[in-house]
Formats: sequence, C-alpha cells, structure tokens
Amino acid sequence: MQQVRLVLVGLGNLGRRLCQILHDKRQHISQRYGLDLVLIGAADSQGAAYDPVKGLDPEQVVALKASGASIADYPDVGKKGWLAAALVATAQADVLLEASPVNLDAGAEPGLSSIRTALRRGLHVVTPNKGPLVLAYSELHELAASHDAQLRFDGTVAGGLPALYIGQRDLRGAVVHELQAVPNLCTGYVMDMLADGMTWEQATDRAREAGVLEGDGSWDLEGWDAAAKLVILANAVLGVSTHMDDVSRTGITNLDAESLQAAQERGERYRLLAEAVRDADGGYELSVAPIPLSPDHPLGHLGQKQMGVVYETDIYGTITAIIDEPSPIPSAATMLRDVLDIYS
Amino acid sequence: MQQVRLVLVGLGNLGRRLCQILHDKRQHISQRYGLDLVLIGAADSQGAAYDPVKGLDPEQVVALKASGASIADYPDVGKKGWLAAALVATAQADVLLEASPVNLDAGAEPGLSSIRTALRRGLHVVTPNKGPLVLAYSELHELAASHDAQLRFDGTVAGGLPALYIGQRDLRGAVVHELQAVPNLCTGYVMDMLADGMTWEQATDRAREAGVLEGDGSWDLEGWDAAAKLVILANAVLGVSTHMDDVSRTGITNLDAESLQAAQERGERYRLLAEAVRDADGGYELSVAPIPLSPDHPLGHLGQKQMGVVYETDIYGTITAIIDEPSPIPSAATMLRDVLDIYS
Repeated sequence: MQQVRLVLVGLGNLGRRLCQILHDKRQHISQRYGLDLVLIGAADSQGAAYDPVKGLDPEQVVALKASGASIADYPDVGKKGWLAAALVATAQADVLLEASPVNLDAGAEPGLSSIRTALRRGLHVVTPNKGPLVLAYSELHELAASHDAQLRFDGTVAGGLPALYIGQRDLRGAVVHELQAVPNLCTGYVMDMLADGMTWEQATDRAREAGVLEGDGSWDLEGWDAAAKLVILANAVLGVSTHMDDVSRTGITNLDAESLQAAQERGERYRLLAEAVRDADGGYELSVAPIPLSPDHPLGHLGQKQMGVVYETDIYGTITAIIDEPSPIPSAATMLRDVLDIYS
Repeated sequence: MQQVRLVLVGLGNLGRRLCQILHDKRQHISQRYGLDLVLIGAADSQGAAYDPVKGLDPEQVVALKASGASIADYPDVGKKGWLAAALVATAQADVLLEASPVNLDAGAEPGLSSIRTALRRGLHVVTPNKGPLVLAYSELHELAASHDAQLRFDGTVAGGLPALYIGQRDLRGAVVHELQAVPNLCTGYVMDMLADGMTWEQATDRAREAGVLEGDGSWDLEGWDAAAKLVILANAVLGVSTHMDDVSRTGITNLDAESLQAAQERGERYRLLAEAVRDADGGYELSVAPIPLSPDHPLGHLGQKQMGVVYETDIYGTITAIIDEPSPIPSAATMLRDVLDIYS
C-alpha cells in the first residue's frame, strides 16, 4: 500500500465534493489500486488546517463547510489567517489539488502562485482551475518537467469528460483537422430557455437555480469560459502555443430570441461552440460562437446537462465524446482521475 | 531519437493499412514523439521477411501485397515457408504487432502462440486480434507482467474508438453501473438494410460490398464478435474475469423483418447491443442481443459506419464515445496508438 499525501486548496463546489469522494472511495481505491489517499492539509479563503500525522477527515471537512464554518475551525489543527500560500510552501505532501476559483482578471491568483510553489518543491499538481493554465501553460509545463513533477488538469475542460486525455493520448500520431467542443453547460442551458420563450432574466435565473450559472455570469455568457477551455485544448491536444487573444470570441448575450426560436422550429439546437479548424499552414483558426446545430451534428442532441467534444482526425476517423453530468460530482472527480493517473 | 523495432505478423486488411500509416507518419512521429518506428520484420501465411539492419520499407510491403504477392517475395530478405512462429522467436525486436485473423475455433492460433513467445522474450505486444485475449486474458497479462513487457489491445473493441483506454484509464476510481456498446459495424449495417426492405441475401451482400462483412459472416451475425468484445471489456474495464460462456448471446439471424420495419416506423434503430449490468453482488450480467434503440438513447443515432460505447458510472456521470469510421484505417491505426502509448 502506497500512501499519497494530498493538500487541497479551495473548498467551494468542487473541493467539497472531492472531499466527499475521498471519503466514499477510500476503501475501493486502496483495494483496486493499492493507494491510500490521505488528505493532510486543506485551505479556504479564511484559513487552513494541516495534520501530516493523522490526516484530516474529509467527511468532517464537508460537514464543517456545510455548516458555514471555515476549515480554520477544524478541531486542534485549524488556523485562521493561515493561507494557502503558506500551506503549499511548507506541507510535506505529494500532490497539490488546486481548486480555487478561476480569476483571470487577478492574474489567475492565488492559484497560479500556489501551483508554481508546489511544482518548484517537486509536488505533483492537479487542478481544475483554468486560469493558471490559460495564462502560463508553457511556463508551468517547463517548471513541472524541470522538477520531475507532473501537472494534470483534466477538469479544466468540459467537466468530467476526459476531453483532454482522449485528445492527448488516444489521438497520438494523428493530425486533428477539426476540433469542436461544447465545453460548458451554462450557455446551452440559457439558450434552450430563451428558445422556449423565456426572457433573458428568466433564463439566467433558471440557470442559476439549476446550478449551472454562478455570479453575474458574464464569464460564461460572453464566451470567456469557452475561449479559455479552447486555449487549453489547443495547447494540450493540438500542440500549438495559444493564448486568449488568439480566439475569435462571440458570446450569447447579443443573440436575438427570434433566431433561437427559428432554429428550434427547424429542429436545431443552439450551442456555444468552441472550434479549432486546421489551415493550410498547419495552424488553427480558433473561434467561440453560438451556432445552431442540426440533428445530424455529432453534438446536435446535447441535453441541458450534457457537454461534448468532437475530434475529426486523419487516421482515427471522427471521435465524439459526450458526458451527461447531472451534478458537479464528475467535475470534482476529475481530480481523483488525475491523481490515480499520476500513480498508475 | 529512440529507435523502436517492430515485427508485424499478419498482412491482411489491418496489417497492410498499418504499413501505409508507418510510411506516411514516420516523419511526424519522429518530430513530435522522438521515436523512429522501424519495421524490421513481417510475416504472412506464406512466409516472412526480416532485415534488422536496414529495416523493411513499409510502402514496398504494401505494394507487394497489393500485387497479390507474399512478403516472402520481398527482395533479398523474403523467405517462403519461414513462418511467423520462427520470426517471433528470433527477431531482435522491441514490439510484436500481432494482426493475424481471429480464429477462436482453432484455439486462437497462430496468434496466441506468437504472443506467448514474444512476451516470454520480453517484447511488448500490440494486437487487434480478439482471439488470444478472449481465450487467455489473465494468462497473457501475468506473462507480460512477469517479463516486464506491455500488452496492448485497444484495437480489439469497436475499431478505432479508444473504448478500452477510456474505460481503463479515464474511469479510474469509478464503479461502472452499466456498460453498453455497439462494438462492430456489420450487424447494424445489415439490420438497417433489412429495415429498408431488403432480403437477408441482399442485405448481407450489400454489407460485403461495403467492406463491413467478411466470409460467411456467421462470426459477426450470430453475435460471437460482439460477445468476444464484451468479454474483453469486462476483463479490462470492469475488472471481472470473464469468458465467452458468461455472455448470454442472441445474434441477428432470427430477427424478423416486421420487427425491424416496425421499429424504423417508430423512429427507432436496431443495433446489436453488448451490455454489462451490475447486479447487487457487484458482479455483472452480460448479454448480446439486437435491441431497438430510441432517439433518446446515447447510441440511438449511430449511422452505418459508426460504433460506440456508453459507460454509466457513479462518479463520472454517463460518458458516451462514438467513432465514425468510414474505412478500416482507424482500426489499423489503433496499433500505432498502442505503440506510442507504450513509449510515452
């Protein structure tokens, strides 16, 4: 039995669900993979807890957060004001799980600094946080390589769908002629509601109630989220160094209801499509825009809790992968997938 | 640049296409992966050729076979009557690509013996040949492990779709509640033709013309092919030791035209579905049978050149993967995928 010591930064939607998974799956994972995954530290925006000897009880972390308390209130080992940076800089851990919120405006901090610190210390890093990857894809990969650490980020694109792993591993040797992805739930959900005749306010309220839209939603609705995911796909799968500026981006905020309803009447569904199309020079045209998809399209039947990716290749045909994700559990579980992959 | 010396046994549909891929992709693979894949030996049913110094020219192998000749006719180094067994037992190679035809009646020979010999010699083995895996899954895996060799067989299920890799790697940590697969083209193709009003003879002739049915077809049409693929999925993904006897098997030969046409009128499509359903004890009920799939089913829109798999899991939601495979190239390319995966 190999012990793997985890430190988790960020106890929001994903971090808490991962704690629950770590609790529920401990026995299964030790039996099937010979790994004992131990949460030795965790941090939220108020403080941190660290116990390298006994570890934290992930179920107790879930209960604490559900009660509205901070991880700083964890019995005996919780400390207020002891922040992620300090925990990551000192914890005797094997893997950093960085699940703090995406914050591109603030330079992807505090996630980016935590990831840099961890990689420099030789910790493996697993993160569903797009910000650091979008801003510093190459730098972080070089940092990981030079410290013999692994950097995994399967959860950054399309929730629990292994869109990146399929693209990076299962398409080895192929040229991708075209990549198309519906990489988030929120925009499709809102457009379906608009097509059904709701106002913009009704549609976005409903999306919030359904748990697919957070905050003011502009990050998703203006297409930034899809563009960030396309940037990560382009770097990781297409092998081209890509930044946000390289993506032609149209959100869904200016879509008129008539277009949506007309598409619905034609049997089509609008989805915010992230596309990369190979050009004659071997580069890619990258775009994000709302597109009406016909029922013949591989992603033309996506429901409101479904995301998908299509890879059109030279030697592996056209491969489509779709996830039906009724809750955020699969998105959180990507961190488990990544950890188990590192230790496989 | 790392040299990888390949020996290929079987120069039928898949073997020849792999040779073409090795030719076309040599530069791309050396540039992107730092690997020089060299074909040093090949065998068909007539003889073999072996040149460990210069290697064989894969494009010349393709031309030889296209002209109706044997690899035994390869200039200078081809030998008639020098068979796969001898080549595999002596070649100074790194990887055996075993692409001889499936032959369960004959104890999966000659493939099974070649694979055993190669693994005992410490060669990695890549094979799209289901027979050896179905008959000796555990034995071959133990043999590989005890000789530090890797055994890959992604091409055994659903052509070029990475159904096995997704199941084995991307679902790590999950419990699969239900697995459903349409793992071959032939049966769906024939049923679509029957639903369109063709007779059995017309439908099977058309399937032969389309290149999806070979020989008398009973292996496919009676469901043996799908059952073999389900056995491999169960062993590799579900982690349960499974044999052909464990699968309840119904082929498509007794389907009446009325049922097929009635389904078509209801907007449903018949497909030969391979299913594994988890029972209360953690085992799986395994079956192969023709089932009418509604448009709501994740595989309900499969076209005549499409295959797919659905994994319904506890923590990764429901993941569907579909391949559109207009030619056998993707099935052949799985051997490249496997080789590149071994050396990643």
